[in-house]
Amino acid sequence: MSAILIKYMKQYGDFSDDQMASILKGIEVQTYPKGTVLVEQGMISSTCYFVLSGCIRQFGVDEHGRETTYEFYTEEQSVVLFNQANMMKSSKYSLVCVEECVLVISGFTSDQEMYDAHEGLESMTRKMTEVMMGEVQEKNAVLISSSPEERYEILQDTRKDLFSRVPQHQLASYLGITAESFSRIKRRIDKSKLKMVD
Amino acid sequence: MSAILIKYMKQYGDFSDDQMASILKGIEVQTYPKGTVLVEQGMISSTCYFVLSGCIRQFGVDEHGRETTYEFYTEEQSVVLFNQANMMKSSKYSLVCVEECVLVISGFTSDQEMYDAHEGLESMTRKMTEVMMGEVQEKNAVLISSSPEERYEILQDTRKDLFSRVPQHQLASYLGITAESFSRIKRRIDKSKLKMVD
Repeated sequence: MSAILIKYMKQYGDFSDDQMASILKGIEVQTYPKGTVLVEQGMISSTCYFVLSGCIRQFGVDEHGRETTYEFYTEEQSVVLFNQANMMKSSKYSLVCVEECVLVISGFTSDQEMYDAHEGLESMTRKMTEVMMGEVQEKNAVLISSSPEERYEILQDTRKDLFSRVPQHQLASYLGITAESFSRIKRRIDKSKLKMVD
Repeated sequence: MSAILIKYMKQYGDFSDDQMASILKGIEVQTYPKGTVLVEQGMISSTCYFVLSGCIRQFGVDEHGRETTYEFYTEEQSVVLFNQANMMKSSKYSLVCVEECVLVISGFTSDQEMYDAHEGLESMTRKMTEVMMGEVQEKNAVLISSSPEERYEILQDTRKDLFSRVPQHQLASYLGITAESFSRIKRRIDKSKLKMVD
């Protein structure tokens, strides 16, 4: 399992085998059954996760009882709720395992000691965060500028696996649309694809 | 002017006066008249900015000619288009000065040399990026979960100054709504505020 992690870390830093072994020694890997609540809304947590396998859903419930799905994290994605990890604020979100998950657990973001102990680790984290930031900026741009139909198609193009891993009403919420709109768009797109095949 | 920058940097790193002076020596400050195009969509640029005063609009035009405003950057905000700064990709966005702007200009993100030369600078950048990431995650959450009316009210609460600094149709675009919806919401909210005053 740690092969995935090593491959991932090597993208962002030039670590020797010794350095890598020493970093990995400080890292914990855990398996969680489907349905596990990793963080519950309102809880204080500065734990960060890296998904080796499985799927985590990030969601929140507002004061009117409306639930919104904000993100799905799958293989090779980092799960860091930055605002709360930095500030030890109570979480606005819950994190729940949608499938059985094998996760790397760390307190990276708030841990200057770990950075001081391992040369190159802070640099790696900076680069990882910048890449994540780029992705979130792009996602934001899509949310602002596109229609629900376009968002559906972009999700199909970029994260097709989610369509078979996650319940439809959660995907709808993630796209910021109702379950009814989701079904309508799905029918329309499936139909037009069938026509293209004809 | 550099007092603003020093105050900002000190939030994220414990720099001595000597260290600060040495970092500032490598930094360029420029004044740009209103209307200046800092980055044009399609251009390759890895320049980053920090706003000492003024307002920068980030926008893009899609293949159908539709223009969308993605962000407004004002005092004490960093302007980093992470994806392109990291990857030297051509920009999906334009950056234009909505007002006369006094900006710090740097190539921070891609500049490992600068980090190696100044102790604490990479750590500062990591922390700054994490705080920015927290803000973008929050903005994302708002975009997914709220109605246009709620987004209007959140913008009024959090960035009231934009309402007098920026044309209404650009604000509408930034909220992901049409100019007509924007006017309608504005009338409704102004009216209900008047009623509360009565």
